[in-house]
Amino acid sequence: MSINRKLRIAIDMDEVLADTIAKFIDVYDARHQTKISLGDMRGKEFHEILPPHLSSSLRQYINEKGFFRDLPVMPGSQEVVKALMENYDVYIASAAMEFKNSLEDKQEWLNEHFPFIPWTNIIFCGHKILDVDIMIDDRIKNFVTFNGRKLLFTSPHNLLIDDFERVNNWDEVAAKLLRS
Amino acid sequence: MSINRKLRIAIDMDEVLADTIAKFIDVYDARHQTKISLGDMRGKEFHEILPPHLSSSLRQYINEKGFFRDLPVMPGSQEVVKALMENYDVYIASAAMEFKNSLEDKQEWLNEHFPFIPWTNIIFCGHKILDVDIMIDDRIKNFVTFNGRKLLFTSPHNLLIDDFERVNNWDEVAAKLLRS
Repeated sequence: MSINRKLRIAIDMDEVLADTIAKFIDVYDARHQTKISLGDMRGKEFHEILPPHLSSSLRQYINEKGFFRDLPVMPGSQEVVKALMENYDVYIASAAMEFKNSLEDKQEWLNEHFPFIPWTNIIFCGHKILDVDIMIDDRIKNFVTFNGRKLLFTSPHNLLIDDFERVNNWDEVAAKLLRS
Repeated sequence: MSINRKLRIAIDMDEVLADTIAKFIDVYDARHQTKISLGDMRGKEFHEILPPHLSSSLRQYINEKGFFRDLPVMPGSQEVVKALMENYDVYIASAAMEFKNSLEDKQEWLNEHFPFIPWTNIIFCGHKILDVDIMIDDRIKNFVTFNGRKLLFTSPHNLLIDDFERVNNWDEVAAKLLRS
């Protein structure tokens, strides 16, 4: 951490800024008339709670062009990110490289919903080897080699994890990182 | 720098892995019958040596879909990057976000010419705020907040800069970073 600059925050996209799971639920309802309940997801990945004959279809849907373009925005995220930018250098960091068709969707989604974030502060990567001070992410794998402050953003799959400072929603991010 | 892991290297794309300037020269030859000489570029950006009536066209061409898809590969880069991967964690880091149409081109270009680099190790960003130990880049702006070892990869625009450890080509990268 340098003392001559603002603190840097890296914010994840899926399940943090974007409600990816809501889209999953919609897709399986629309294409397979299969109702998936968030309550069943506690501690599990979405593909684990799909009926067995559907579990391999998820990756196919995620790889479709357009999948990431119309994800719902997480409540409060726009306002809190904008407020954070007054006091921090805010970066958006998504492991988008895993899904090669997602890059343009994610870029356009950010431009639509977070137009105040400059291109200089958007990162599409795989491993998040970032020189930042704070990371907000729902995946603990992204914390493994990170020495800064880790805020685990609650998502059903991480509900059984106790070892990290947790934020359940964007109000809690604001409470921890913004002065009241 | 952690002592429990391999050293990480971040390698730039344009003018380091990919010969972007060769493409510039081809474009102005083909579209405007204007021959640009590398010799005129010493210490200058490409748009600075274009005839005045053409200087604003460069950004338009760079933004065209496909521009980054067929760049020539820098001589020796494939062999040396592959060899580096045996001893280092090698990341490719490109400031691709500046050109929104470049993301898919760059991804496909890497998959074609550097298929041995996994998606986990590709980073498209703006500011290169990377937690790496060594950075190979032709742009000193990417070194500003970086505390690791900086290798300035020679490109015409940076020829007048004396303040950094320099590599003129991929043979020199190998000589500095690989054991003989």
